[in-house]
Amino acid sequence: MISEKGKTIPQSPIRMLIPYADEAKARGIHVYHLNIGQPDIKTPDLIFNPIRRFEQEVLSYGPSQGTPMLREAIAQYLNEDYSLNIETGDVFITTGGSEAILFLMLSILNPGDDILIPEPFYANYNSIACIAGVNIVPITTSVEDGFHLPPKEKIESVVTDKTKAMLICTPNNPTGTVLRRDEMDMVVDIAEKNDLWLFADEVYREFVFDGGECSSFLSYESSQERIAIADSISKRFSCCGARIGFIVTKNKELYRTIWKFGMARLCPPTIEQYGASAGFNHRHEFLKDMIKEYEHRRNVVYEEIQALEGVFILKSEGAFYTVVKLPVEDSEEFVRWMLTDFEKDRKTVMLAPVAGFYRTPGKGKDEARIAFVLKEDDLRDAMDILKEGLHAFKNKT
Amino acid sequence: MISEKGKTIPQSPIRMLIPYADEAKARGIHVYHLNIGQPDIKTPDLIFNPIRRFEQEVLSYGPSQGTPMLREAIAQYLNEDYSLNIETGDVFITTGGSEAILFLMLSILNPGDDILIPEPFYANYNSIACIAGVNIVPITTSVEDGFHLPPKEKIESVVTDKTKAMLICTPNNPTGTVLRRDEMDMVVDIAEKNDLWLFADEVYREFVFDGGECSSFLSYESSQERIAIADSISKRFSCCGARIGFIVTKNKELYRTIWKFGMARLCPPTIEQYGASAGFNHRHEFLKDMIKEYEHRRNVVYEEIQALEGVFILKSEGAFYTVVKLPVEDSEEFVRWMLTDFEKDRKTVMLAPVAGFYRTPGKGKDEARIAFVLKEDDLRDAMDILKEGLHAFKNKT
Repeated sequence: MISEKGKTIPQSPIRMLIPYADEAKARGIHVYHLNIGQPDIKTPDLIFNPIRRFEQEVLSYGPSQGTPMLREAIAQYLNEDYSLNIETGDVFITTGGSEAILFLMLSILNPGDDILIPEPFYANYNSIACIAGVNIVPITTSVEDGFHLPPKEKIESVVTDKTKAMLICTPNNPTGTVLRRDEMDMVVDIAEKNDLWLFADEVYREFVFDGGECSSFLSYESSQERIAIADSISKRFSCCGARIGFIVTKNKELYRTIWKFGMARLCPPTIEQYGASAGFNHRHEFLKDMIKEYEHRRNVVYEEIQALEGVFILKSEGAFYTVVKLPVEDSEEFVRWMLTDFEKDRKTVMLAPVAGFYRTPGKGKDEARIAFVLKEDDLRDAMDILKEGLHAFKNKT
Repeated sequence: MISEKGKTIPQSPIRMLIPYADEAKARGIHVYHLNIGQPDIKTPDLIFNPIRRFEQEVLSYGPSQGTPMLREAIAQYLNEDYSLNIETGDVFITTGGSEAILFLMLSILNPGDDILIPEPFYANYNSIACIAGVNIVPITTSVEDGFHLPPKEKIESVVTDKTKAMLICTPNNPTGTVLRRDEMDMVVDIAEKNDLWLFADEVYREFVFDGGECSSFLSYESSQERIAIADSISKRFSCCGARIGFIVTKNKELYRTIWKFGMARLCPPTIEQYGASAGFNHRHEFLKDMIKEYEHRRNVVYEEIQALEGVFILKSEGAFYTVVKLPVEDSEEFVRWMLTDFEKDRKTVMLAPVAGFYRTPGKGKDEARIAFVLKEDDLRDAMDILKEGLHAFKNKT
């Protein structure tokens, strides 16, 4: 009775182990959640304020493409911070970044078409591609190369008549890798030469560490007709529950098409768009400190993990994640065991197994994603627990 | 470069005439919007209060299936008001009612499968079916029959091997028709005999006039394994911009499948779920008065319209709509003309042409939907303007 898509759409590999965490909590164990992209960073009050002060008598539908106020604030932010030339009419507000990706796939790809995505990739891309009936062709990257892109020839070798687009996430979830400018050049060049659309997931645009360059694919002006950006305020403003994302594209035909998909769901949430506008208008008051905090946490995790025997970690360049190679055969089994069988002083740690972030079967079985979503003390305590857990797990087998 | 779905997904027939209304407003004309399902009824303060008082430090992701608090409030509301036996685990929170319909179609129907829907129907069903790749087979109803269902044989005559589900909206948008109990019996019987899923859009469940019976397909207990309800708080709590809908089903396999689609978009908006919970818990404080107000408006529109020469109207039984037959050849042309060429004392009226609510080409060309979304004085003024507009339009040609 269930559809083929209903049968094949994967569970979130991040969310599917939650029942084991719930059981641990029911036994009185404190679980450090390093498995999810839900930071503990306080949502700035200046984002809550317009929500708390919302004064319209009727909580009514907004425009399908989002309120002019928010679309203008986003255009201004991009133009000021990245020297771009974005107009309000290039910005389309979505219900979270996930809807932005879905609308892009639906607008450009037919069922059965291919989209190239470097793996490991944000696991929800699998689910969204399943909804759109689109086939993901992975471009494998590896922890040893810092998850940077393979040479152009290797990428172009998987392009076929069915390939319609590439989806690039930088700074990257789950790897924390930030594409260098020469890699971005190469990606744009591949798109041009092979007549592909380039979708860029730039949700973590500002999350670049060690003074590295923040950039956007929107800066490639001469290729703008084939480029669309998916973005979200969830991480930038630490308000994942607001469900406000956006698409930016200069391609008018694509924009009009997205608009029609947008009409089908009427509008994104109304109240949160007021909070989001305030966030963009006042970003300078909190964003730098937030990124500095994530960089500090990245340093803490790196310092703690690299001291662990048998664990391989590279210093992640951005976002708030890192992928580590663990001295275990199956990281999913290890993550589950940490929840069901291990504790230290009534506490344990939950990581995200990375196999579900690869498309290629068998890849990443010994890898796990760590999210820098807790403050330093908690992170250090969690790393201590992880260390003892790895030791106990090894001796158990 | 645009996908097939991107090309074929229709614009909302309700929203696509908005640019003409915007132009009229730019000329200083006041437009009475009777074309949209956006009521002027104040959102109850008791729904705003938990939103204004949201005190969590981090606006974080909620569960993909919605917060337990809201799911429990909905189960309790259904059980108390409709003598049902719904559990919290049967309720799944969606981002608006539109997502509820999408998740049901995606979970049950494969691309190319048929779903039966009485026409005229809520036009967004077309867009949602397009996203899911599903084929809508219309069951035509007519204004002369008060848009009630045709006999069983006629409905069953279009069932084929590809038919997987029926979608029934009662009380109905756009017609205002409320299915009689014998019609509901027939629908369930057809679903049983032909092994079809029954999706019921019950967004307007309480919106029944003249003391008529409010009911739900959830009351057919022996058929619960093939029944799922799509619902929303948008109209019931007059908060269309909250984007909170829900699905109720006793079928566990369907529920688990919906959950996977829900994971792909992470969660519905967090803050509004607090408002929605308050709305269900305090519904008795405002809902009856709201329905009484809509019934009064229905009476006003009926009284005014039936006095107009050449206009055919039946007293609508529920929701807050009615479909009228106008003495024009093409109601879309008339609606557009009212915005571009007509005014009375710097005011005009916008209706929704109904052709876009039919699947069968050519149907409903002389029909328009009127939504009872304005208060009495405005409605009477709008009906006056409509009367003069019809007269002037007739003399123009």
